Amino acid sequence: MTASPAPVVILVAPQLGENIGMVARAMANFGLSELRLVNPRDGWPSEKALSAASGADWVVEGARVYGSTAEAIADLGVVLATTARPREMAKPVLDPQAAAERLAGRIDAGETAGILFGGERAGLDNDDVALADAVITFPTAPEFASLNLAQSVLLTGYEWFRTRGLEGGRPRQAAPPLAPKADLQRLFEHLESELDAAGFLFPPEKRPTMVRNLRTIFLKADLTDQEVRSLRGVVRALSELKQRRGTDTN
Amino acid sequence: MTASPAPVVILVAPQLGENIGMVARAMANFGLSELRLVNPRDGWPSEKALSAASGADWVVEGARVYGSTAEAIADLGVVLATTARPREMAKPVLDPQAAAERLAGRIDAGETAGILFGGERAGLDNDDVALADAVITFPTAPEFASLNLAQSVLLTGYEWFRTRGLEGGRPRQAAPPLAPKADLQRLFEHLESELDAAGFLFPPEKRPTMVRNLRTIFLKADLTDQEVRSLRGVVRALSELKQRRGTDTN
Repeated sequence: MTASPAPVVILVAPQLGENIGMVARAMANFGLSELRLVNPRDGWPSEKALSAASGADWVVEGARVYGSTAEAIADLGVVLATTARPREMAKPVLDPQAAAERLAGRIDAGETAGILFGGERAGLDNDDVALADAVITFPTAPEFASLNLAQSVLLTGYEWFRTRGLEGGRPRQAAPPLAPKADLQRLFEHLESELDAAGFLFPPEKRPTMVRNLRTIFLKADLTDQEVRSLRGVVRALSELKQRRGTDTN
Repeated sequence: MTASPAPVVILVAPQLGENIGMVARAMANFGLSELRLVNPRDGWPSEKALSAASGADWVVEGARVYGSTAEAIADLGVVLATTARPREMAKPVLDPQAAAERLAGRIDAGETAGILFGGERAGLDNDDVALADAVITFPTAPEFASLNLAQSVLLTGYEWFRTRGLEGGRPRQAAPPLAPKADLQRLFEHLESELDAAGFLFPPEKRPTMVRNLRTIFLKADLTDQEVRSLRGVVRALSELKQRRGTDTN
């Protein structure tokens, strides 16, 4: 069923199996097939999901479950997060069409890509959004702005399908590969542990915001493998004593 | 709730109240408010419709019921019919975007406009389609082409809302100002002087390339004022941490 590569759909803490099934159906309408679930509330597999998928069984049956958003995106090159409205995160904000174009460009360059969708009640939390390279918001009427989960997936898939259809087969651009999210995660943890040691991420109630803002900087940069390695080296060089490191203090 | 004139949504022989409610919700998302029902199977009004509308009550409560498609469109100037696939009718076939543009053109010219959607099971019959000026079809994946009723309305509304230029939509997020290049320059020099002190930018013949690559990372990130200040703080904190580590062992 999967012809050409397409973005992965990642549902973070979805609640009802029915809604997961509706998402699967919307994905199938637009040629998306890879579904990942982070901590589905009502468990998995789900008969209700299968029933609501109205025949998009291959999407439901192929869904994989993860214990955290970070794990679910660890192997992906570019990740977008859907939010009801722009948040104060200084990340690029895309409408679904611009998002589809960005994803298509990256996928043409040989990247893997994913789109994060939050649960039915509250959407993505800020820590999940912070993991993404950019944010997708949907243009809706201000007096009734909220889309449900399957509708958000539907609009995103629609724009993806249109972008693919309009382009046909664009030649691949040679672009350096983006670092996998797992490597970025290790860079973040390295930097943050040194900043903790330096007393920089202080006071504690401000730490989450400071961490998110720092991560946003590096996510915006679309880092390559090589750049992540350079930054690891920079953090080490700035914070560690070069000679006799680790021996003096033992 | 209705600001500027917009197309009427006409559901022909819809079955479940839930689905009518979902249609109302999708309409409200994109600023459509006038709903007409032709022979709703399960009767009208419908508690289930109201509940499924998730707050788009004004659409459900304002819905009017008609005994035939012809009556429901009698006062309208231009009518489009949605179908799953083009039929042998020698009518113009539009995708949702082209349909929205045509409707907007007509409404701007002072016309009234409507869009026909068929019931859940079989869509519009040929007699209903024959009443329309043109047909809307949705681009979907051939192996899973069928959209449900509310999804068809959602995509149509989405394109309508986009075509209207988002005039009723929320203003785009005001992007935070980028840092002046002079501040970036000071960040670069600060970082590089600390890295020189750490012996990181070594050997000398590789220094220019290493510096360029590091600068590229931060240039790609489109840094704001605040982010440049944060990064200055990070460089300072890490360098001071190292000094502390150096003196601790002395």
